[in-house]
Amino acid sequence: MFLEKIENVNDIKKIDPADYPALAQEIRDFLIEKISVTGGHLGSNLGAVELTMALHLALDLPEDKIIWDVGHQAYTHKLLTGRKDGFDGLRQYHGMSGFPKRKESCCDCFDTGHSSTSISAGLGLVMARDHKGENNTIVSVIGDGSLTGGMAYEALNNASKLETNFIVVLNDNNMSISENVGGVSKYLNNIRTADGYLDLKEGIYNKLTGSAKGNQVIKGIRRIKSSLKTLVIPGMFFEDMGITYLGPVDGHNVQAMIDVIHAAQRVEGPVLIHALTKKGKGYLPAEKHPARFHGTEPFDVVTGKLLNPKTEPSYTDVFSSVICSLAEHHENLVAITAAMPDGTGLKRFRSQFPDRFYDVGIAEEHAVTFAAGLAAGGMKPVVAVYSSFLQRAYDQIIHDVCLQNLPVVFAIDRAGLVGSDGETHQGIFDLTYLSGIPNMHVLAPKNKWELADMLQFAVMFDGPIAIRYPRGTAYAGLEDHRAILEIGKAEWICREGEIALFALGSMVEEAEKVRDLLKAQGRKVSIVNARFAKPIDTEALFDAAKDHSLIVTMEENVAAGGYGEKILAAANEKGLSNRILNITLPDSYVEHGCVSILKKQLGMDPETIADRIMEAWKA
Amino acid sequence: MFLEKIENVNDIKKIDPADYPALAQEIRDFLIEKISVTGGHLGSNLGAVELTMALHLALDLPEDKIIWDVGHQAYTHKLLTGRKDGFDGLRQYHGMSGFPKRKESCCDCFDTGHSSTSISAGLGLVMARDHKGENNTIVSVIGDGSLTGGMAYEALNNASKLETNFIVVLNDNNMSISENVGGVSKYLNNIRTADGYLDLKEGIYNKLTGSAKGNQVIKGIRRIKSSLKTLVIPGMFFEDMGITYLGPVDGHNVQAMIDVIHAAQRVEGPVLIHALTKKGKGYLPAEKHPARFHGTEPFDVVTGKLLNPKTEPSYTDVFSSVICSLAEHHENLVAITAAMPDGTGLKRFRSQFPDRFYDVGIAEEHAVTFAAGLAAGGMKPVVAVYSSFLQRAYDQIIHDVCLQNLPVVFAIDRAGLVGSDGETHQGIFDLTYLSGIPNMHVLAPKNKWELADMLQFAVMFDGPIAIRYPRGTAYAGLEDHRAILEIGKAEWICREGEIALFALGSMVEEAEKVRDLLKAQGRKVSIVNARFAKPIDTEALFDAAKDHSLIVTMEENVAAGGYGEKILAAANEKGLSNRILNITLPDSYVEHGCVSILKKQLGMDPETIADRIMEAWKA
Repeated sequence: MFLEKIENVNDIKKIDPADYPALAQEIRDFLIEKISVTGGHLGSNLGAVELTMALHLALDLPEDKIIWDVGHQAYTHKLLTGRKDGFDGLRQYHGMSGFPKRKESCCDCFDTGHSSTSISAGLGLVMARDHKGENNTIVSVIGDGSLTGGMAYEALNNASKLETNFIVVLNDNNMSISENVGGVSKYLNNIRTADGYLDLKEGIYNKLTGSAKGNQVIKGIRRIKSSLKTLVIPGMFFEDMGITYLGPVDGHNVQAMIDVIHAAQRVEGPVLIHALTKKGKGYLPAEKHPARFHGTEPFDVVTGKLLNPKTEPSYTDVFSSVICSLAEHHENLVAITAAMPDGTGLKRFRSQFPDRFYDVGIAEEHAVTFAAGLAAGGMKPVVAVYSSFLQRAYDQIIHDVCLQNLPVVFAIDRAGLVGSDGETHQGIFDLTYLSGIPNMHVLAPKNKWELADMLQFAVMFDGPIAIRYPRGTAYAGLEDHRAILEIGKAEWICREGEIALFALGSMVEEAEKVRDLLKAQGRKVSIVNARFAKPIDTEALFDAAKDHSLIVTMEENVAAGGYGEKILAAANEKGLSNRILNITLPDSYVEHGCVSILKKQLGMDPETIADRIMEAWKA
Repeated sequence: MFLEKIENVNDIKKIDPADYPALAQEIRDFLIEKISVTGGHLGSNLGAVELTMALHLALDLPEDKIIWDVGHQAYTHKLLTGRKDGFDGLRQYHGMSGFPKRKESCCDCFDTGHSSTSISAGLGLVMARDHKGENNTIVSVIGDGSLTGGMAYEALNNASKLETNFIVVLNDNNMSISENVGGVSKYLNNIRTADGYLDLKEGIYNKLTGSAKGNQVIKGIRRIKSSLKTLVIPGMFFEDMGITYLGPVDGHNVQAMIDVIHAAQRVEGPVLIHALTKKGKGYLPAEKHPARFHGTEPFDVVTGKLLNPKTEPSYTDVFSSVICSLAEHHENLVAITAAMPDGTGLKRFRSQFPDRFYDVGIAEEHAVTFAAGLAAGGMKPVVAVYSSFLQRAYDQIIHDVCLQNLPVVFAIDRAGLVGSDGETHQGIFDLTYLSGIPNMHVLAPKNKWELADMLQFAVMFDGPIAIRYPRGTAYAGLEDHRAILEIGKAEWICREGEIALFALGSMVEEAEKVRDLLKAQGRKVSIVNARFAKPIDTEALFDAAKDHSLIVTMEENVAAGGYGEKILAAANEKGLSNRILNITLPDSYVEHGCVSILKKQLGMDPETIADRIMEAWKA
């Protein structure tokens, strides 16, 4: 009814304020219906419906700018900016992204995907605005979980110097993807229950925004806060940094949010609006099980159950159970996650070994150096993390772990193509950034048994070691190939001569298909399971060079600094004259979509690989 | 007199407390004398003399642990742990490091060099201690500058949960390497001048430590603080996070520091001791010019003047003046540093264009995403940063700059070998981590004119672009070679056939020397100035392949993912059969020492390179 009237940005302003609750309900119904079909982020979007409506009502987009931290909560924003039809193809190849994208709409002013970037980016846009002499409003919307990331604090520290307007909306649902951790969380909790909340309930900001003296009154309030600093005035943490604090305000009350945004616009300096919201609001299964409905596959709306529950274990599941078995035998094994106990599979470890489990919040940098400290103290830390998020801790791996050659195990999930989360989440750089680091060892398993073996190997190993494995079902083939793991040693799967496929990790499964295609064309094909991306097995390479005129490397990583280039370098140094073909991902960001479609598009499917190999064979 | 008695750790405990001031004076004299000869970090060490003495007196090393954030302030610690003789070879090849090193002493429990890591590492050691059931004291010493790094905040956030003892000493000299910035700095300043300081002056902690009820009294104080929260009680920022705050205390009063450390040891939870110190304390030139004496070359003790003032401009100097000229013509050019206006050469820009200059504190992550925001807003941000510190912002380059293809210029100083700062500061990974990122462009100038040309080119360029240049004197040779810059185009310096040297950046100068050596052996040698590490000039390569049977690449970077591997990959793809030799740094950390010695040791000196080339030529 009301949603039909919203075809483009600012159409929401035509809706009668009395109908805001009805519109909010329609938006929720729409999101639940669409996401139940396509899958996507549900809980965070249901929690941000009114908050987003208020921003669109109070601001003038696209002149005013909203930067969505992480960005997976921007569905309502997409809905209100002419992208209703996009929801049928949400997160699908060439369909609408699940995150803000500048190339998708002029109302998306900054791409996000990783956590804690929005205040930094917003501050940049504010400075650019001021340099250009413009006076639009710039708002960064950040969750309480994202506030556990140090970068957000660096940005707040810098924002505090500002003498022009900049609004940060803290969307506080008292959890990030999982439970929140640490002092800041405790602090925010105290505020939620403090008496100061009454100020808002009594509508103080309503009065302010109507008045011409509003700005002065706010300045007055701020002065009083600064001099009194009593318990009933919340937000001292931010005030201490020089940031005006407004709140807490009910993030599900559209009018209250509009009022506080207008009040914030009058402050000449940085303002933080503390909005309280509920993750999953309005959909009971999501309210009850926020972690389950953070990001979901297609589900039945009535029961909340997955339509196609997976039957085969994923690599995450394998990690989850193996790490618990290992912990039983290694008392010094501890596990660390940066706010992803569910995603990384550490949830089970947490319940079995609560004293040896650390969730450090969205703080990958701290996670890695903390692990280094634990290792220096004689423990065996396992850092379970997604490939694209570990990018955050690159310097800590170099400077704190590998420089001291400390025995930290990195269990790197979501390595390679991840699918529907798209560009920001593809794990396509880890071979590059890890293989360049001295003392590091980089492994990738061909199947589920090998992941188990590699984890056991890693826990016994006395040095930095990383195992990368992809999202999705763990390969269950090649069960009989379980040669003992040795540092830097590959495993021959089969040996026939002519063409040797040196495949890393997930590409071993693909290599089997490629081999079938090539054999159908009369070729002899060998498969080598690389196992190690660093150090590579040069002996296996030199051995293969004897009876294979074509050597093919296969990896799910960009070419630069990857496995293939290492093989090339070794072959060059040895003076091999064999033809070498590197199958890698291209030097470009990879958009969202089903992994099998992406592979086809990128020439990483068995058919295209086989064609390229035959071309090289004939050349 | 007193210093003579200190041969090993804990010998300081034999000194009569009445003689602490005399010992402190001797330590200062010793440090000034030694550093005036070898060069090194002076100001931070003079500021930490009494603080270090107090830690050694209050603790039992090596059972108790001290983690020095950044680590350049640990000279007194080295002096007190049996390394007096090491100061004659300070920061020299095979001599004593200027930073803590586990391999140097059992009293160095964690290597540092970069900022803001100590609380994370300390927390790791604390957790390991607790798991092992030990009860030693663990202290992280962090400067106020390092507190501007988000990682320190991530660590404090996690430390707040702790229920066992962990001491953080905030060594607050009201500046980092340069002036401090932001809300936290302002906040600490307020504390410095607050009435609460009187508590300490009145010796409240002295009384506490003597008493058996000390612990309870401290808990009582903490309770009062929590309920009153008035202005006169400092440290709310930390108390709000759940961290007991003790201070401020005079960091130059040994007894007061000992007392407060003992008091802190009684707290069952995280404690922050706020110590006020003066950078350069006791040496007037360093007190007056803290930035100049942060790290210094050899100087005259009486005048404070450099013994060998440099006469030739460094690359930093060239950047410093060129970026100012460019700013005059490009009104949207803004410059960003992470607490290094002096080191990066942006000091001059700051004075000429104060409104277009941003010092964001030691916050590289924020710096890069802030730059992305500025670029998205239409500005042309130049991020001036050291190669090894930019590692901190790897994800931000991938996720915030390059994904959106934003025109941010990275001016990367200290790329390649940096010399006496050693392992943590060598800029030997940037070609690897930058070249793997889609949309990024990576350049390196052969001489000072080319740096100027590249900066101009970069400022005009509409996309992410990085220029890496080394520490030290800018090469002034090859003045006549100034071919117009084009994306991905190399420059032929001379062409003779037989052997082609494809040299990147600083290696062009070396290539000239190598060429002379090879010509003396009768070889024909061409030199190609690579200019671009990404994208590489494949045409120049294919062209060279026609009349050069040996192609040599030369770069100051590790091999993996560097320039040489890119050349190899292009040659392989084209099917070139020329012999290719990659001259790169080895896959290992490079210790401190004079760059020329390091190059010789690493086989990167002209003689060794020429030998290796002749070997390949004959093979």
